[in-house]
Amino acid sequence: MERIDAFPFCVENFHVDFSGRLFPSLLGNCLLNAAGRHAERRGWGVTELCREHRAWVLSRLCLEMEEMPQRFETVEIRTWVESVFKMFTNRNFAILRSDGTAYGYARSVWAVIDMETRRPCDLQTLYGGGLQQYVVPDEENLCPIAGHGHFRFRDAQKVRTLEACYSDVDVNGHVNSVKYIEHILNLFPGERYRSYRLHRFEIAYKAESYLGDVLGFWLQQPEENKFEVEVRKDNSDVVCQARVEFVPISK
Amino acid sequence: MERIDAFPFCVENFHVDFSGRLFPSLLGNCLLNAAGRHAERRGWGVTELCREHRAWVLSRLCLEMEEMPQRFETVEIRTWVESVFKMFTNRNFAILRSDGTAYGYARSVWAVIDMETRRPCDLQTLYGGGLQQYVVPDEENLCPIAGHGHFRFRDAQKVRTLEACYSDVDVNGHVNSVKYIEHILNLFPGERYRSYRLHRFEIAYKAESYLGDVLGFWLQQPEENKFEVEVRKDNSDVVCQARVEFVPISK
Repeated sequence: MERIDAFPFCVENFHVDFSGRLFPSLLGNCLLNAAGRHAERRGWGVTELCREHRAWVLSRLCLEMEEMPQRFETVEIRTWVESVFKMFTNRNFAILRSDGTAYGYARSVWAVIDMETRRPCDLQTLYGGGLQQYVVPDEENLCPIAGHGHFRFRDAQKVRTLEACYSDVDVNGHVNSVKYIEHILNLFPGERYRSYRLHRFEIAYKAESYLGDVLGFWLQQPEENKFEVEVRKDNSDVVCQARVEFVPISK
Repeated sequence: MERIDAFPFCVENFHVDFSGRLFPSLLGNCLLNAAGRHAERRGWGVTELCREHRAWVLSRLCLEMEEMPQRFETVEIRTWVESVFKMFTNRNFAILRSDGTAYGYARSVWAVIDMETRRPCDLQTLYGGGLQQYVVPDEENLCPIAGHGHFRFRDAQKVRTLEACYSDVDVNGHVNSVKYIEHILNLFPGERYRSYRLHRFEIAYKAESYLGDVLGFWLQQPEENKFEVEVRKDNSDVVCQARVEFVPISK
């Protein structure tokens, strides 16, 4: 079996923001769907894992875009496994135009947990270590963007509080990974998106939150056009941390 | 050209709620995309209309479901024009299982407006009255659900206030029709969705709202398991009105 899968999709009218560009959260959704299908085809999908009370858990996601796809464009997402470690695996993505050039790239880090003990499984031995046969080593620099950075929150201010609602929660019963991205990008006002575009977005997932949880959004700005957001549950437990980098839109 | 188009889609892992059923708002999105493509193929799409500074405006949408599609099921949306009047046109939908039986049906009412004057165009004469050649009269009861009802708000209470954010606003610069559905269904707590399923949803769009607008959600309950919601901008202008009907989930 090939190790890299390609998933085409068309950017629909209702998938774009006011500038006519694909919503970053919807791109996140497409990446996770592509990841799910790539795993499913190789016997590592949610259906199989669920049967043995295991689940994929997304730990980190980062995305760097030279350009966001526009309405009605056809986009191809390629995804592959870059490496498999004991506790986690790296999965990369290329987001391509129909001529094969890249809109951008993404990196993600995943674990498989046992749903009863909530502990991570050993990916190097799970199912006979079978995940390793799909690894595409990054010798050819297939994903030429920086990896995940670290976070240090010092002077963040609480800028929003919201309650996790019906539409936030996915089939696993917790707030969906992509919904955090949507809520974080919603912290910025219209003017930000009129003059700047999202260049890079990083998120680290720390804990789960559930329907009805009250989430606080804490914001700090370490540099011009660079923001960091920490989402806390009940003002204490850290749920996720994100970094948002904008660049001015060239007129 | 055929008058009824069929658009298949697969219910992805991240398109379902905590019960594993397609989010109603996502189904709404699929309906609007199907409508857009059906119109586009016949020279009545947003691209063509936009060239002459015209736009489709959704006035009403109602949806009645016997069952919501489940994760990984393949769904086919069929859509056609039921009738064309001077100021508006009725477009219907059937939402079908892979065996051809129906999950449910939907009805919608649309106008075409001139974007400069904001006034409706005469659909019976626009482009030589060409829309009428695509009408599929409802002789065969292709869409066996009740039409749109009327609203009367008497004792509604304000239950939520929120600011229209980046992710709410679509390429037309106003809050997206489907986002109102999402926000309205978010008014109900988890317990409602654990014991009941959405049976029917109706919405009438009255005015547009924009990024940064403060929206108030007013709720009344005329009958058991039946709710009505009015969304008001700045506590006065009515933006939309909706009716939400739940039925108990049969165990």
